[in-house]
Amino acid sequence: MEKLVSIKNARKAISQANEGVVERSRRIYVRGSRNDLRVPFREIMQDATIGQGSSEVNPPVTVYDTSGPYGDENLASDVNQRVNIYKGIRPVRSNWIKERDDTVKLDEPSSYYSRENVKDLKKTEGTVSFNPITRKAKENKNVTQMHYAKLGLVTPEMEFVAIRENLRRKEYLEGLKSNGKISKAQLERLIKCHTGNSFGAEIPLEVTPEFVRKEIARGRAIIPNNINHPESEPMIIGRNFLVKVNANIGNSALSSSIREEVDKMVWGIRWGADTIMDLSTGKNIHETREWIIRNCPVPLGTVPIYQALEKVGGKAEDLTWELFRDTLVEQAEQGVDYFTIHAGVRLAFIPLTAERMTGIVSRGGSIMAKWCLAHHRESFLFEKFEDICEIMKAYDVSFSLGDGLRPGSIWDANDDAQLAELRTLGELTKIAWKKDVQVMIEGPGHVPMQLIKENMDVQLKSCFEAPFYTLGPLTTDIAPGYDHITSAIGAAQIGWYGTAMLCYVTPKEHLGLPNKEDVKTGIITYKIAAHAADLAKGHPGAQIRDNALSKARFEFRWRDQFALGLDPETAESFHDETLPKESMKKAHFCSMCGPNFCSMKITQEVKDYALKKGISHQSALTIGLKEKATEFLKAGSKLYSDK
Amino acid sequence: MEKLVSIKNARKAISQANEGVVERSRRIYVRGSRNDLRVPFREIMQDATIGQGSSEVNPPVTVYDTSGPYGDENLASDVNQRVNIYKGIRPVRSNWIKERDDTVKLDEPSSYYSRENVKDLKKTEGTVSFNPITRKAKENKNVTQMHYAKLGLVTPEMEFVAIRENLRRKEYLEGLKSNGKISKAQLERLIKCHTGNSFGAEIPLEVTPEFVRKEIARGRAIIPNNINHPESEPMIIGRNFLVKVNANIGNSALSSSIREEVDKMVWGIRWGADTIMDLSTGKNIHETREWIIRNCPVPLGTVPIYQALEKVGGKAEDLTWELFRDTLVEQAEQGVDYFTIHAGVRLAFIPLTAERMTGIVSRGGSIMAKWCLAHHRESFLFEKFEDICEIMKAYDVSFSLGDGLRPGSIWDANDDAQLAELRTLGELTKIAWKKDVQVMIEGPGHVPMQLIKENMDVQLKSCFEAPFYTLGPLTTDIAPGYDHITSAIGAAQIGWYGTAMLCYVTPKEHLGLPNKEDVKTGIITYKIAAHAADLAKGHPGAQIRDNALSKARFEFRWRDQFALGLDPETAESFHDETLPKESMKKAHFCSMCGPNFCSMKITQEVKDYALKKGISHQSALTIGLKEKATEFLKAGSKLYSDK
Repeated sequence: MEKLVSIKNARKAISQANEGVVERSRRIYVRGSRNDLRVPFREIMQDATIGQGSSEVNPPVTVYDTSGPYGDENLASDVNQRVNIYKGIRPVRSNWIKERDDTVKLDEPSSYYSRENVKDLKKTEGTVSFNPITRKAKENKNVTQMHYAKLGLVTPEMEFVAIRENLRRKEYLEGLKSNGKISKAQLERLIKCHTGNSFGAEIPLEVTPEFVRKEIARGRAIIPNNINHPESEPMIIGRNFLVKVNANIGNSALSSSIREEVDKMVWGIRWGADTIMDLSTGKNIHETREWIIRNCPVPLGTVPIYQALEKVGGKAEDLTWELFRDTLVEQAEQGVDYFTIHAGVRLAFIPLTAERMTGIVSRGGSIMAKWCLAHHRESFLFEKFEDICEIMKAYDVSFSLGDGLRPGSIWDANDDAQLAELRTLGELTKIAWKKDVQVMIEGPGHVPMQLIKENMDVQLKSCFEAPFYTLGPLTTDIAPGYDHITSAIGAAQIGWYGTAMLCYVTPKEHLGLPNKEDVKTGIITYKIAAHAADLAKGHPGAQIRDNALSKARFEFRWRDQFALGLDPETAESFHDETLPKESMKKAHFCSMCGPNFCSMKITQEVKDYALKKGISHQSALTIGLKEKATEFLKAGSKLYSDK
Repeated sequence: MEKLVSIKNARKAISQANEGVVERSRRIYVRGSRNDLRVPFREIMQDATIGQGSSEVNPPVTVYDTSGPYGDENLASDVNQRVNIYKGIRPVRSNWIKERDDTVKLDEPSSYYSRENVKDLKKTEGTVSFNPITRKAKENKNVTQMHYAKLGLVTPEMEFVAIRENLRRKEYLEGLKSNGKISKAQLERLIKCHTGNSFGAEIPLEVTPEFVRKEIARGRAIIPNNINHPESEPMIIGRNFLVKVNANIGNSALSSSIREEVDKMVWGIRWGADTIMDLSTGKNIHETREWIIRNCPVPLGTVPIYQALEKVGGKAEDLTWELFRDTLVEQAEQGVDYFTIHAGVRLAFIPLTAERMTGIVSRGGSIMAKWCLAHHRESFLFEKFEDICEIMKAYDVSFSLGDGLRPGSIWDANDDAQLAELRTLGELTKIAWKKDVQVMIEGPGHVPMQLIKENMDVQLKSCFEAPFYTLGPLTTDIAPGYDHITSAIGAAQIGWYGTAMLCYVTPKEHLGLPNKEDVKTGIITYKIAAHAADLAKGHPGAQIRDNALSKARFEFRWRDQFALGLDPETAESFHDETLPKESMKKAHFCSMCGPNFCSMKITQEVKDYALKKGISHQSALTIGLKEKATEFLKAGSKLYSDK
């Protein structure tokens, strides 16, 4: 076995994760009702607006921050405190889990494979293994957030996400109240924005812990938080909360190493991935996952059937319930927060795919289809679904009910196979909810724009508003190499219509495994789609970041414009391609129009002029401007002002 | 003056334009009712599908081709026939214009500036100047396509676009009829697709010249075809036709040269730009434009006020109607096909922008605003609008009525200033139509998703369904460096809702001038948005390319998958990053899952199996599969088949 992670590369990964966020940003924590409940945010600092003889302070803009300890500049700059990925990151939720006193510490893994695997690992030179405390629910206990929620308990996890989701809502509400500061028109716009077109979502003006509890109890949202992944900072997935983004990583038989995968995870959360899925199918699946989980501050999802298939040498028909069950326990005890389970691929649905353009494109779906055909029986995932629920509730693993029959092309979108499976996922949701297991539903895939809304509506109805988690969807098939874009178009729309989490698609989709650059491009693209959806749904405060950036842009605060964006480095490097000099960061023009021809500059003059003269809508339309025009000419109407 | 275009670079540009399209593609021409009416298309060749003992022919897929003579491999490979950009490309429309016998040849330019400029040019060493035949309408003649259309005449231009737009409709209709070849479910899907959600667009099953004529006469579509740009191949912009994409090029005072701009134009049409706008603001505006037009097979648009401003040394208040008028004539006689005219920026609207987040962001809009304020009078563009129409109709220049007050941020979207201007553009449309001048309307800008539909609906109503031509719109402001994506999300939607042409946005938007790579990225991104819109609107035949690509993907015809995409080179290079060997182009797997784990492979087995056994929906659901399952196991259900 290779030496899994080299120190040099690990340091490099951590350094990269900390670089960039530090500049013009700082980590802040908002404390909750207890000392160990500290919710991280990133504050982007802004320069003041310097006018003629006056200066206006631009307050920092707070943004949601998924980067965990890697994004805390105080930790990063202290050699003793910064993350050592050989030890794993700090388990922020340990106390909360222990205090509930409904779990027991296990002396050894319950899974046969894990016990054997640990023996093997110890024989191998050069590897490191973690010794986390493994827990399981006490007998007859249910440790899911949904269970607590239904009992009326507000957990620290719920409070954490309430604070996290309440992002910028206070500023927004203050803006609403401050009639003096904003105009009536602006106020109307704010309200119009919030009451925008949210397609039945019920987005609150303030996110309270109680609101979170109700949404979890109702099944409309989930907090994927395995008790064995105490390192993860709680986050929520639901239609009445901010739209989330998942990034897939994982090696295959052909490519990639553990080091690269840990590196990709750290890289992914640096750019804003809300959850990570480890889709490894090659060697060292167990070890790769252990490294990722111990260092991962966001929920981690997997598709357990992938590892199960590796265990039977890739022969789908050799899969058994017992082996699969052991794999679920193995992964649950490692700390996986949600499992994709393709329990909706029923025997009777498989022939519905025979006439498709692209058959079954889900890996999990095709494995189960093959198993079902080979044995001519209903899949064990479907038949043993209640047993699976029993495992899930003992660790609080959430279901991500897989869409094994999702369409792989525009042609196959919303066909009988897909919709039959979706209805089955709804039936399974009801079973899981009876056992208080959290559920989200996976969705397509490839769907042309005119069919996206229908897909969302069928999901909401068939699955009783359980959160939808979609891959894209891609809105056309004709652009391999650009499927992050073909799918961002669909993702923004389905997010607006009600999808709770968007699974990213990288430029390499259909062509190869994403490298680090592709992972970044995929995440930024999906952060755009998610934010566009948040705006359209009218999330209070969502637009404050847009407004701040636009104001910075208009006032030629170039550095602020870069810093407020999703990717400051790229923005700055693009600017510098034509205007590299440092002084140009303060220039009141850019390379697009040159110094004599800037519309922003001209309009600033119009604005200054109108404001100085007290021109309001009414006065301008009723009073003549003749005299003012003369003054304007007299003043020289210079293109270059000295400010 | 610099030596404007070096031969080496020109050859390079032409070579680049021809490379790539040649591989696996060929130029075809569909002849119309006369010998000199030959409509170009690109045919993408496909390999056959090789099964066990059988082979299925995959017919070539015909695609719309904007690359003109540069994309004709027969011309390109012949040194005597390939384009020489010092001479310009072949004027394909010359006969049609001459035959109408309503124009006169001018001995010298009517514009004062052009006459003086030509003198200057002749003094300058190392420059080349073209000697095109310049024409103008005979006195009292109107030479616009709208004029002919209203008279009931079907011009060769109209027939040309009818053939061009009829793309793949025949195949589509044959598919509809061939009940034997496609299943009932597929037939229903085809019809469902065509009758999709087109928001009131009336897309015909067959595009006839008469349909084109009616749409032009009605003002719902335009063919921007200046009689002095006979090199351009006719194309149509209208909501009942394929959604088009414009690419902006142009130098600024700080950057770029004529050579680069010609190069960008050739590069732009290679990737599918339907029209090009030359937005130069720096030096050599006239010469840059001349070079571009003489070599440009697609309509060229400009914003004449930019050049006018250069002529008065950048002082907006020094602009005069006379100077602007001379500029219009100068450019009309060079062959510009459409002019952006910001005649909707009325004096009374300017104060409406004072409270905006980002004021006036349109360059043309801000120039006119400054002029109006400085003189305190209505803009000469508005006051002299009828005079402008008189010029337009003498050359058939189309209006692109500029949105000088478009929003520059999400905050400013759909505000009073924007909508007041839009209504004015509607009034101006009526005036232009009275004089049979073709009109399209420019649109935003920055608009969050929930306000896009409203914007489109207001435009359709206020402007009487004149074609809408939008910049994006950007759906969020928080991603400088990625505004091709923030805007593609909006562009796909507004295209679906009814926008006829999308103005591309490159990754450099807000940050700098696009280089060649940015131009390519911008165009591909917008081809995606336009095609996604075409699919959603239900354009008959649009989906045939998606289907062909998906089929190639499913059958592991890698080379076909690349060739059918919008950017074959990028797709192939992405694939080759992990599987560079030539043999892997035929591999029945890819690097994402590796050879033992391919869902496409597994599902192919399922499909083969189901088809072989004659399993249809009904039989599968009613007859047991037990016996078949046994056979499947007996057959070995190998993951590796030998085919």
